[in-house]
Amino acid sequence: MKAPSVSSPERSRRRPAMPMQPIYLRLADSLEKMIRNSSFRPGDRMPSVRRFSREQRVSVPTAMHAYATLEARGYVEARPKSGFFVSARLSDSIPELLSIPSPPRVSDLSDTDPLSLLRSDDYDPAKIPFGSAVPSPDLLPGLRLARVMSRVARRLGANGGNYGPTEGPLMLRREIARRSLAAGLNLAPDDLCITLGATEAIALALKAVSSPGDTIVVESPTFFGLLRQLREFGLKALPIPVHANEGIDLDALAVALRKKRVSSLLLVPNFHNPVGFVMPDQNKKEVVRIAASRGLPIIEDDLFGDMAHQGARPLALKAFDPTGIVIHCSSFSKSLAPGYRVGYIAAGKWQERVLALKKVHSAANPLLPALTVAEFLIDGGYDRFMRSFRESCRQQVAKMRDAIGHTFPEGIRLSRPAGGFVLWCELPAKVDSMDLFYRALNEGIAIAPGPFFSPDGRFRNFIRINCGYPWSSRIERGVQALGRLVRM
Amino acid sequence: MKAPSVSSPERSRRRPAMPMQPIYLRLADSLEKMIRNSSFRPGDRMPSVRRFSREQRVSVPTAMHAYATLEARGYVEARPKSGFFVSARLSDSIPELLSIPSPPRVSDLSDTDPLSLLRSDDYDPAKIPFGSAVPSPDLLPGLRLARVMSRVARRLGANGGNYGPTEGPLMLRREIARRSLAAGLNLAPDDLCITLGATEAIALALKAVSSPGDTIVVESPTFFGLLRQLREFGLKALPIPVHANEGIDLDALAVALRKKRVSSLLLVPNFHNPVGFVMPDQNKKEVVRIAASRGLPIIEDDLFGDMAHQGARPLALKAFDPTGIVIHCSSFSKSLAPGYRVGYIAAGKWQERVLALKKVHSAANPLLPALTVAEFLIDGGYDRFMRSFRESCRQQVAKMRDAIGHTFPEGIRLSRPAGGFVLWCELPAKVDSMDLFYRALNEGIAIAPGPFFSPDGRFRNFIRINCGYPWSSRIERGVQALGRLVRM
Repeated sequence: MKAPSVSSPERSRRRPAMPMQPIYLRLADSLEKMIRNSSFRPGDRMPSVRRFSREQRVSVPTAMHAYATLEARGYVEARPKSGFFVSARLSDSIPELLSIPSPPRVSDLSDTDPLSLLRSDDYDPAKIPFGSAVPSPDLLPGLRLARVMSRVARRLGANGGNYGPTEGPLMLRREIARRSLAAGLNLAPDDLCITLGATEAIALALKAVSSPGDTIVVESPTFFGLLRQLREFGLKALPIPVHANEGIDLDALAVALRKKRVSSLLLVPNFHNPVGFVMPDQNKKEVVRIAASRGLPIIEDDLFGDMAHQGARPLALKAFDPTGIVIHCSSFSKSLAPGYRVGYIAAGKWQERVLALKKVHSAANPLLPALTVAEFLIDGGYDRFMRSFRESCRQQVAKMRDAIGHTFPEGIRLSRPAGGFVLWCELPAKVDSMDLFYRALNEGIAIAPGPFFSPDGRFRNFIRINCGYPWSSRIERGVQALGRLVRM
Repeated sequence: MKAPSVSSPERSRRRPAMPMQPIYLRLADSLEKMIRNSSFRPGDRMPSVRRFSREQRVSVPTAMHAYATLEARGYVEARPKSGFFVSARLSDSIPELLSIPSPPRVSDLSDTDPLSLLRSDDYDPAKIPFGSAVPSPDLLPGLRLARVMSRVARRLGANGGNYGPTEGPLMLRREIARRSLAAGLNLAPDDLCITLGATEAIALALKAVSSPGDTIVVESPTFFGLLRQLREFGLKALPIPVHANEGIDLDALAVALRKKRVSSLLLVPNFHNPVGFVMPDQNKKEVVRIAASRGLPIIEDDLFGDMAHQGARPLALKAFDPTGIVIHCSSFSKSLAPGYRVGYIAAGKWQERVLALKKVHSAANPLLPALTVAEFLIDGGYDRFMRSFRESCRQQVAKMRDAIGHTFPEGIRLSRPAGGFVLWCELPAKVDSMDLFYRALNEGIAIAPGPFFSPDGRFRNFIRINCGYPWSSRIERGVQALGRLVRM
């Protein structure tokens, strides 16, 4: 690939105007300027570090430092073995509150009928899959798991159809407990109960700590499935605004808790769906402190916690919970096999109550899928798979951001998630995403419109885009078509 | 085998005293007398029909007729290819009400702590398995199902881990709908939702038609798992006595409904657990009429409906429900694979509500076990299996009745179920079955004591015995040991 001529404007700035500014910073500034004035466009490959160092007559480490700085600012993205590429032009992380900071009001969720709309498209392979937050089956180890399940079934013989214990097989709970160290937890197998995905985990948690009519604090926006659960269980929602990079606004939370009576908090602290933030550890600590001071339990939906695009797993909220008030819920549904329905709950103080509820709700999980996941964890298959899967998600999210940057009109804003596979996109204020939702469906494209994620009809000009599918010409055409619809 | 000398007493009665009485009836009477005076003892093999006809100088059809009459009276039981055997001496079906016909009182179920006791023995293979109502894994087609699952998993390939739809795979619902004709139903696939066993089906039904604090009519006695569900869901129970052969006392029900406000009825009309009755069709019709006249839904737990020992399947309660007020719940957990957790619900008027609740409780069933059961149904494996399984249950129940008749003290009464694999046993009034429960556990024998089956502590001198295991010397020793404990 031919690199655009970067040397001439760059060289003219090499003579230090501000002598104290390090060389790598000046180089980064000038590259940023070139990207801003479209000398490099979103998706373009930047000159290689080696070439750049040669052209700029700086050392390779200095050139590398410049690129790293530019990456930290969000202008370029490193792709393994391919070098640096210009990020989506409009893809700076959204700096301010995503929701209008008006006083939170309790919602009885009666206005959330749109929730039923997404469903019809979930499983229609003819639709461009930007709607539901699901990875492509092609990315998941369906075949490998099927082989493991056959092996487990043969080994169990006639016992394969037996009831398992309500809390799930010890073999699986032990593996999950071991892995909980990475999330800053230190769970024992007995702290855990296997559930039917995170859905049942959260259902059991809500039933353990609340009664119909109670009000639950949620993030605004939050995953519509959680709102649907609140509604069906006869609960009310108190939506608190989130920051794009830090999660729930702690001041707004503290004020709201002084004014409203709530029974618990339901939060998605890591790779939030739809916004993508990871709550900073300090905020996690603080929100637990705030809840504990009022005797409130927190239900933590850590569904995407294992799915950092790069580097270490973020700590769970429950890692900052010395007294057992955080109910930690997660699942292998997003990362391994949605249809196996293997999730788990560590309910702290409420563990016994959760077990009693699990017994009367579904008795126990199906045994074979649970043992299959256990075996896949034990033999290292899960870790190997997750390394490549996380990288796939990273690439897909990056590609989607680039494509949206190219295709959508000026003035949009995009989240910059460091994990998971959804993007949250603020469209120009005049766009009505419910209207867009129907127009897109007409063209065979599923999206998730902003109001799905709000108990009170907010986020009218937002959409969530699923990036769970590998990049393809079909996906690319889908983005282009969606961009046209947004502009219309 | 040498037959006891039957000829001499018999011949002396061959000369007709009452000339109008048919020969076969006189033969049956005399055989009955010999059994009553212990000439033949419980478990003994009767002379073959051929030999009996020769000895009595009657035709083979007449001899056969005599035996059939004796069988209808409950004194002998036919075993395929083995001839007729004397039934348990004390095993006449219990003619009167099993429960004390005192006025039903609403119970808040706070006194049902014993419910938690059985659990610890459910999965302990060291215990003699008379406690939980489960069939032996050796009887179930675990291996065949595992092979089907492997085949299904291979065919699905990478899609095997996908989410299935909330209502469950169409392929399975279609098969269940087809089979519903045998139960007098005429369900369409869309009338059905696949659930996690009958447990989830009943949980969803209860949530669809009741709110915490409501009172639900139950049979007295009834399956303790149902009582546990009521308790955990914050519901109260109104227990109505049952007749040993007809089920819920319709007069008592009608009176109770005039006095108490209830939100629904929860009934087990076919092969009731623990009593074993099948409600006569006329009673089914009448109970639906009574409920409908008061606008009350009925939740039907038809878990054992497919498990008639011989002959046709009894009709479901829902077969007598023209207006959709009966919520039909069942499962393959007892008959095929407890651990696959594949049940179903046909909720009539409440189907939409049940689907919404299923979505927020567990999202969907795991796909592979559901598709595996579907395939097993389609290729005829289920029907072949059920033929032999029902016969095994019949034999095991008969053997257990014989053995209890031999071993337990005089004065006990036993149910005579025509399906399923549990026996309900009334012990002498002085026996405290909770005390017996602990003493039996000490000797490594699990049983289910009567008070488990009552919200208000009744059935103190009753126990339920699981006959789900093939007869063996271990089972036989268990019955003998239990008999000793009862006598102590």
